[in-house]
Amino acid sequence: MATNIVRFVHQGRSAWGVALNGGIAPLAGTYETTADLIARGEDDWRAAKTRPASLPFQAVELLSPVTAPARLLCQGANYRRHMIESGLNPDEKAFNMFFEKADCTLNAPHGKVVRPAHVRLLDYEIELALVFGKAISGPVTVTADNLADHVFGLAIANDISARDVQLPQMQFFKGKSYRGFCPVGPHLAVLEREEFRYLDHLTLSLAVNGEIRQQDETANLVYKPAETISELSTFSDIAPGDILLTGTPSGCALRVPPPFVRKLTQLVLPEKKVWAAFGRMQAKRPQYLKPGDVVTATIASADRVVDLGEQRVTITA
Amino acid sequence: MATNIVRFVHQGRSAWGVALNGGIAPLAGTYETTADLIARGEDDWRAAKTRPASLPFQAVELLSPVTAPARLLCQGANYRRHMIESGLNPDEKAFNMFFEKADCTLNAPHGKVVRPAHVRLLDYEIELALVFGKAISGPVTVTADNLADHVFGLAIANDISARDVQLPQMQFFKGKSYRGFCPVGPHLAVLEREEFRYLDHLTLSLAVNGEIRQQDETANLVYKPAETISELSTFSDIAPGDILLTGTPSGCALRVPPPFVRKLTQLVLPEKKVWAAFGRMQAKRPQYLKPGDVVTATIASADRVVDLGEQRVTITA
Repeated sequence: MATNIVRFVHQGRSAWGVALNGGIAPLAGTYETTADLIARGEDDWRAAKTRPASLPFQAVELLSPVTAPARLLCQGANYRRHMIESGLNPDEKAFNMFFEKADCTLNAPHGKVVRPAHVRLLDYEIELALVFGKAISGPVTVTADNLADHVFGLAIANDISARDVQLPQMQFFKGKSYRGFCPVGPHLAVLEREEFRYLDHLTLSLAVNGEIRQQDETANLVYKPAETISELSTFSDIAPGDILLTGTPSGCALRVPPPFVRKLTQLVLPEKKVWAAFGRMQAKRPQYLKPGDVVTATIASADRVVDLGEQRVTITA
Repeated sequence: MATNIVRFVHQGRSAWGVALNGGIAPLAGTYETTADLIARGEDDWRAAKTRPASLPFQAVELLSPVTAPARLLCQGANYRRHMIESGLNPDEKAFNMFFEKADCTLNAPHGKVVRPAHVRLLDYEIELALVFGKAISGPVTVTADNLADHVFGLAIANDISARDVQLPQMQFFKGKSYRGFCPVGPHLAVLEREEFRYLDHLTLSLAVNGEIRQQDETANLVYKPAETISELSTFSDIAPGDILLTGTPSGCALRVPPPFVRKLTQLVLPEKKVWAAFGRMQAKRPQYLKPGDVVTATIASADRVVDLGEQRVTITA
């Protein structure tokens, strides 16, 4: 059974624990960073798991179980139907797309996401996040057999995106990196080696104000974790505690016309008018997040052996 | 007079020093990271500067004066003529473009850059790099008056780019992040406060096998350092030792047709054929870097008060 590690503030101090049915069993040790927990914490969280919960969930404020500084490496366009709604042709894209989010985006799983004053097209993207457990400093070949050596745990991440910055400016980094744009958690789920087969069988689900917007299975990931980490290792070092966001399924607020329509528009209109038209079209979509909206997200296996908890964030102005 | 700090290996140990006319005056202390040097080294490098050089340059192997881990934040398309050769219309782009390079790209100033086996369109980009001296954890307003508080020093960086990954895949991060793709140094030039006026008056020059390819002045930067750091602070935290690459002038190997031709081609041809045609066109350009090529780069003020030294790297297979 996977161990659901949580990080929280209790009586003004941050600490780690294991989430159980009735509450939290705190770890005995203190760990400044996720990397520190990974390096020294195993006996501690294995012991905590066998104790009764001593802290009710209501007594704590949950934090992101991934601490900064960390690399937030992301895959784009990694579910076919999301590619189509983003204006991409899945049969023409034959490469794994990577980008980074700044680590100032790391945010609590039950907190607030501030919509920056200049942003109108605020979008959500539920993603399965893999938390690395092992350093990489050169090309490695990751397979189903050694994936468990590289991945310490799993978490829910919401890759919040300002589409009005990301797309007209073709800036993934800036449009996705405003502070607080990456709620992570609540659980950092540590899988036993034999539980890694669940990686391909998790259901992701995201709702806004209770209405389901995204729902899909990790079985539909185009580029799977093992091959993705192998490729990533050719152009990025990895430290324990860094994370990989594996891409989002369809159902985002964003809708982009199919490639041919888009290219024709770009041919006949100057760039600025293209994006002004894009902005007007998107502004009509009520799906974009507004202050007061509540975004809930879950990722779990059907039998709940793997259960990343429920993330619940409120959008504020 | 700016102080030219260098990092080097001597007798198997890495150390820091000040580059003087006749060689290097080593610092007395040891500093694991650039951040550590910034925090504790000032008295040490000020004292070293007054001593005679005791180490000849030939006795050491120079290292990047920027150590990993670090954020490598980059500006794209920040000189008008480079925008035109990259197929962008400078009058239509009205935003500061940011991206990141992975820190595994950090490389010595007099070493080798390996061209990955699958890369054919290897390009060079000389850039003025600013090394941050102060942490940023929220939006700040940087002006000419407080720029010196944020920038510890200056260095030459070469933003080596695999155009055949970066452009067909629209992946700045991946195409610019293979290991060794960012030689930095030799000098980390620490300016006195009154010398910051030189920032807008530096000449950048890059040559391949002795033939000058890029030459321009920082006066032509579209988005200047102060306004750029102000904007950056809204979507990224900064730690001392992180760097900002301020963009490259014209003269790269890359040549992209003007926007209208490009858009027309994209309309009539499937994506794959567009990029196949792009690849064939670029492959004819002998300017792309090949194994054996030697790339030299300098950045200095006309009066040499600010002189970032000469970077010299060899391309290998």
